[in-house]
Amino acid sequence: MRTLIKETIDQTGQELTIKGWINSIRSYGKLVFADIRDRSGLLQVVGGKDLGALKLESVVEISGTIRSRDSKYFNDKLLTGKVEMEVKDLKLLSPAAKLPFDIHQPELNVSLPVLLDYRTLSFRHPKVQAIFKVQEVVIDSFRRALKAKDFFEFQSPAMISSVPEGGADVFKVKYFDYEVYLSQSPQLYKSLLVSAFERVFSVNKIFRAEPSVTTRHLTEAISLDAEFGFIDSWLEVKDMAEYTIKFILTEVADKCQAELALFDATIPSVPDHIPFIKLRDAQQIIYERTGRDCRQEKDPSPEDEREICKWAKETYQSDLVFMTHYPTKTRPFYTYPDDADPEYNQGFDLFGRGVEWLTGGRRIHDYATIMEHVKEWGIDPQNIELYLQSLRYGMPPLGGFAFGAERITMQILNLSNVREASLFPRDMERVDSRLSNAKKN
Amino acid sequence: MRTLIKETIDQTGQELTIKGWINSIRSYGKLVFADIRDRSGLLQVVGGKDLGALKLESVVEISGTIRSRDSKYFNDKLLTGKVEMEVKDLKLLSPAAKLPFDIHQPELNVSLPVLLDYRTLSFRHPKVQAIFKVQEVVIDSFRRALKAKDFFEFQSPAMISSVPEGGADVFKVKYFDYEVYLSQSPQLYKSLLVSAFERVFSVNKIFRAEPSVTTRHLTEAISLDAEFGFIDSWLEVKDMAEYTIKFILTEVADKCQAELALFDATIPSVPDHIPFIKLRDAQQIIYERTGRDCRQEKDPSPEDEREICKWAKETYQSDLVFMTHYPTKTRPFYTYPDDADPEYNQGFDLFGRGVEWLTGGRRIHDYATIMEHVKEWGIDPQNIELYLQSLRYGMPPLGGFAFGAERITMQILNLSNVREASLFPRDMERVDSRLSNAKKN
Repeated sequence: MRTLIKETIDQTGQELTIKGWINSIRSYGKLVFADIRDRSGLLQVVGGKDLGALKLESVVEISGTIRSRDSKYFNDKLLTGKVEMEVKDLKLLSPAAKLPFDIHQPELNVSLPVLLDYRTLSFRHPKVQAIFKVQEVVIDSFRRALKAKDFFEFQSPAMISSVPEGGADVFKVKYFDYEVYLSQSPQLYKSLLVSAFERVFSVNKIFRAEPSVTTRHLTEAISLDAEFGFIDSWLEVKDMAEYTIKFILTEVADKCQAELALFDATIPSVPDHIPFIKLRDAQQIIYERTGRDCRQEKDPSPEDEREICKWAKETYQSDLVFMTHYPTKTRPFYTYPDDADPEYNQGFDLFGRGVEWLTGGRRIHDYATIMEHVKEWGIDPQNIELYLQSLRYGMPPLGGFAFGAERITMQILNLSNVREASLFPRDMERVDSRLSNAKKN
Repeated sequence: MRTLIKETIDQTGQELTIKGWINSIRSYGKLVFADIRDRSGLLQVVGGKDLGALKLESVVEISGTIRSRDSKYFNDKLLTGKVEMEVKDLKLLSPAAKLPFDIHQPELNVSLPVLLDYRTLSFRHPKVQAIFKVQEVVIDSFRRALKAKDFFEFQSPAMISSVPEGGADVFKVKYFDYEVYLSQSPQLYKSLLVSAFERVFSVNKIFRAEPSVTTRHLTEAISLDAEFGFIDSWLEVKDMAEYTIKFILTEVADKCQAELALFDATIPSVPDHIPFIKLRDAQQIIYERTGRDCRQEKDPSPEDEREICKWAKETYQSDLVFMTHYPTKTRPFYTYPDDADPEYNQGFDLFGRGVEWLTGGRRIHDYATIMEHVKEWGIDPQNIELYLQSLRYGMPPLGGFAFGAERITMQILNLSNVREASLFPRDMERVDSRLSNAKKN
């Protein structure tokens, strides 16, 4: 029977069996000390030359007696720092080859390409594991936040038959005798589902064939999407997004203290209500603060995003801020125009620490209006027939929001590259291995 | 403020606002009765001709007073059958076009193609909603079963750079200047992750380009996958699969009573331990029971699967049965050969009610052995380099299992076609709309 390492601390005097990887070896003649690592922690074992002869990262099963260490050898940094195991029986379950680089330092000092070329090893580093622990909590708390509000979880399709707004940046799939595409967003599916289930969310993959290699782009990413009906106003959509983000941040703060500490990361601080401001008002403020005249721009520039975050921090002590009411014509055809000023819409983005975190808004639910937009935006209604049906047969007033699991993980932990927040990042140059080895199309 | 319909029952005398779809209209001259449907139930409202003039499935907001019905009009089938709302204010939020078929009968009497052509309407039928409620509980309880056992949830990639065992039945994606593929299984990724996280699971999409249109095939499906390390025997893998399936069935029985009742479905009954039997022993039993000699076959035929399920039911009063130890050479290269008889492996399938429910097994963890298999199976090691690395640097003894969310939903509810258990089923002839309309490759 295997005992997890974290459970050895109270078992002084017991003979136990542990299983794990050899994390370190220190040989003093016949006496060999090693740290064994399993998913719960590290334990020092004391053995002989057979232990010392093994390679780091070999998988072992060790039976022996747990004893207290001499107090001068206490290690306060380890949960198990006051005990050790005296090896009675050592079994090699799986030998390891010589490591290509040192994975047992506090920092993994290798370049990102090497870190990805040896994913099996980089995954074993505490800081890399911490990234994906945080991501798991983000995704899981997203689900729990929305389930608590009576949302139905659905799985959105990856392969789609047409691309509503033109074929730029979309991956094509050979589908028997036809051509289909990889979905860039579950937007139309989640809207359609609102017409039957009222409140829906999904955790699913989206695909973007953007021909750029930046620190913020992945070709395959995890999208966290929510959409709900029977709203009276776009403010309810903003409020639901705010509730969800706050729920997630609180859960991460609560469950990932050790992980946050590894990155010196702190959860963004937000007041009771995250401030929100219209794009045009934000641009006026930026103009007054900096003299930079962006008042006619249809989108905030990266500089503007940083400035409005600074303003929100100074004015409202908030690390997060919503920007709302973008020019209607420059946004997707389904975004709801503001009743008071239809040149601008009821869409919003949430910004944090100078960059975009989330995007959302109210959507058009009226069939006549959507058909006008379809025409104006130059969309072939045949391509979105299933979605249009949902508006033809009684669609409640609705809205929703979406954000990327990798990007929010990156922001929380202050990572410099979004690839670090993806288990198996895909970009123009890499799909697991570097594409220079792959088959040319 | 909207009140959900299920919350109106205790509010006789109150003036409330409800929002929903018009589920039925019955006009008696100036007096019009309608049932309004929201996600929580149905409520009868009593109004005038303006209500009667609306089309079914229109979205309305109605304010009015809740009152008790005359006891002779009580409807025992409805939670809200003793109350009704007297309409004071009626607002049309979204008109509906005339419905192409009747969606308000206990059974949706339309063919599957029509049901899918009008997904937005079929989703509103209680029996269709029930299917996806069950599926949501299946997926959610799969996650909870494994989280309770300390498994880490990961998101597996959809796009992969190579197909380890040849390119049959795989979808090709044009990826910038290269060709990549859609994943048929997260097997190699989940194994790789075991080498760092020990215990992992995922809920993700898999893609199969099988050129066949049967009642059991989807080209895009939801795979529930688990894999874990530090096992002593394949029996631990079987036991974990058994625990997971039982957990799911118990949850469905508990949370989906109304949904099961709609389909006259019952949860499979299983004894304390699901029986398990080697393929060759099962074939011998089938031979003795039926005279059909399948003792040299490498796989059970559909007939064999039904017969062994019958046998398990008669012998062990079990609706589920594991078949184990398949011929090594006919299964994937990573399956672990049985130590006592390496011609057969430590893989297994779970069968229920005559068909396969789940597949799993122990995997090879030794680098030298996997390299022998790679050679024998004719696999290019370059294509699975990332996976091979995980065995080169210390892989614990491991195993795992997988099953399809649609298929298990289909089995639980006795559906006749797996497409009914997929929100947006994809097959050779359909990706949302019928492909005859789509772009030829």
